[in-house]
Amino acid sequence: MKWLVFRWAAGALAVLTLSLQAPAQELVSKLAVPARELPIPNTVSPELQKVLARPVAPQTEMPTTAEGWKKLQQERDAVGEATAKARAERLGVKIEAAEVGGVRCYRLMPKEVARGKEKYLLVHVHGGAYVFGAHLAATGEAVLLADACKMPVLSIDYRMPPDHPFPAAPDDVLAVWKAVLKDHDAASVVMGGTSAGGGLIMTTMLRCKVDGLPMPAALFIGTPGADLSKTGDSVFVNAEIDHVLGRYEGRIEACIHLYAGGHELKEPLLSPIYGEMSGWPPTILITGTRDLLLSSTVRTHRKLRAAGVPAELHVYEGQSHADYLFAFPAPESQDALAEIALFFDRHLKR
Amino acid sequence: MKWLVFRWAAGALAVLTLSLQAPAQELVSKLAVPARELPIPNTVSPELQKVLARPVAPQTEMPTTAEGWKKLQQERDAVGEATAKARAERLGVKIEAAEVGGVRCYRLMPKEVARGKEKYLLVHVHGGAYVFGAHLAATGEAVLLADACKMPVLSIDYRMPPDHPFPAAPDDVLAVWKAVLKDHDAASVVMGGTSAGGGLIMTTMLRCKVDGLPMPAALFIGTPGADLSKTGDSVFVNAEIDHVLGRYEGRIEACIHLYAGGHELKEPLLSPIYGEMSGWPPTILITGTRDLLLSSTVRTHRKLRAAGVPAELHVYEGQSHADYLFAFPAPESQDALAEIALFFDRHLKR
Repeated sequence: MKWLVFRWAAGALAVLTLSLQAPAQELVSKLAVPARELPIPNTVSPELQKVLARPVAPQTEMPTTAEGWKKLQQERDAVGEATAKARAERLGVKIEAAEVGGVRCYRLMPKEVARGKEKYLLVHVHGGAYVFGAHLAATGEAVLLADACKMPVLSIDYRMPPDHPFPAAPDDVLAVWKAVLKDHDAASVVMGGTSAGGGLIMTTMLRCKVDGLPMPAALFIGTPGADLSKTGDSVFVNAEIDHVLGRYEGRIEACIHLYAGGHELKEPLLSPIYGEMSGWPPTILITGTRDLLLSSTVRTHRKLRAAGVPAELHVYEGQSHADYLFAFPAPESQDALAEIALFFDRHLKR
Repeated sequence: MKWLVFRWAAGALAVLTLSLQAPAQELVSKLAVPARELPIPNTVSPELQKVLARPVAPQTEMPTTAEGWKKLQQERDAVGEATAKARAERLGVKIEAAEVGGVRCYRLMPKEVARGKEKYLLVHVHGGAYVFGAHLAATGEAVLLADACKMPVLSIDYRMPPDHPFPAAPDDVLAVWKAVLKDHDAASVVMGGTSAGGGLIMTTMLRCKVDGLPMPAALFIGTPGADLSKTGDSVFVNAEIDHVLGRYEGRIEACIHLYAGGHELKEPLLSPIYGEMSGWPPTILITGTRDLLLSSTVRTHRKLRAAGVPAELHVYEGQSHADYLFAFPAPESQDALAEIALFFDRHLKR
């Protein structure tokens, strides 16, 4: 047996590239990308195609006063509330207002609780850029999760700006979690939410660690607000492509600053990607290829894996931020909900 | 206990959207995206940043004759061979030419075979757009896999155009697999490869099913050539952003047509995304947020999951097509290799 032995200058390594790549060239500091027209993806269901064909959210004048914000919140949340109610009726999910740990919440009960799941609880934290989604609007995603996971859901109607900026929201989520722990085994409880909800769940894990509190059995973190600063490659690549968020500047940035109330955006309790993740529960992450927060999601996934957390990632073709929620009942939306339910089932205490 | 009951017209459902999204508007048939400048991602290691700062591969005149193709192949594969040799020396991986099932191959032996892994085998199928990566250039990725997985590797130097278009390459991979099955328990063998290699592995699974052959214990499919047609959202979104592939038209398309030799590109043996995937082995998929084949990878992931195959996805921040190979030894490259090794360890027969 004759092994080939190679003797090459180690210094040559750095400049070598594989066959497909062009020979080494000058490096660039910015990449100029020409204007183009993108077709609506034809690699998704007809139902989802209709959602993906929505125009990119226009840049509207954002409020500059508390009253202006409240008016905008009322307008938007009326739409969110209507969605939640319509879904609840369609799916036969019952919703009841409740107070838990001194925080306004909703208890949701699906038409059918799977056998053995009566003792489980899914704690839901809604999205809405830390500004929208108050009251019944909070339950638009919770209804879908209750139905898909076939277990009771507790959805937190946390306080929001302009009256209650950071840290009111994470304080409320933590207060609810502490109250839940009083009458639940943490191994029988999961936590889930999208966007701001995902970010707030991550923040809550950071605080559980500091306070020595038990963590849930598993987490669902959908396209999380893990980094509130303008950081992450997809914030640039998918700007003006993500039809839900549009771009970081303007609308989204205004919400973030209203919420942060002057705090440094990279504080881990605002941008939990900068926190320490060892010991977190198993986590399922969901995003889409056109998501402005694609990078936020995959960076969170990588950081969880590096911390030794069993974390799995699902990226949906052509979807912008949280399209899996907006597109319900498109097949891809049901598929994402089924993945979440399966993941929770695998990790909840028998 | 008083449940709120909602009565809403079911017809109202279709037009309702959640809070963050703008009110329903006219749908668009194309999305116009303005020109922009993208910064080099600062969310990756300094080593990887240097790779991501390489300019997008320029559009060069592609050959029109067999002789022209052979000249280009020799030039490119000389670079690939140098990379493979330098890596082999650096990592202490031994490479030996071999013939298996009548097909030219290389046997690779890492400096250290992990205890108990002597009986395992990783069958490697190289990338290179079905045109490049011949002979020793085939082993550039195999060397990294041998070192990371600490097991013997058999890398297939399959036939390629212009002399040997489709189906020579899948025929060769299948011939090697049949030969491997003669002296290996399939449960002790895994298969892995990137780009064209990933596509050829998928094709081989389709043929295993037709022929009733055992499949490997697990697969690594890196940013696969799963769809040779211009299909998938990232082929449009990441055009002129993926610094490795550039765009579908021109260079890549010329390679695909040289390989396909006039066959319909959506035949499952050319574009295995259109094949039937039930019963495939557990599969790990790897891609990057700037990858022209991001959609090819996530579509494959979703189709595998829908077929009930345990499949896990890893998406790396800011990376273009197969950057995890080109960037070695950047930390992200080592991280991807470690994920592959971990996945194989979990699924190989004890």
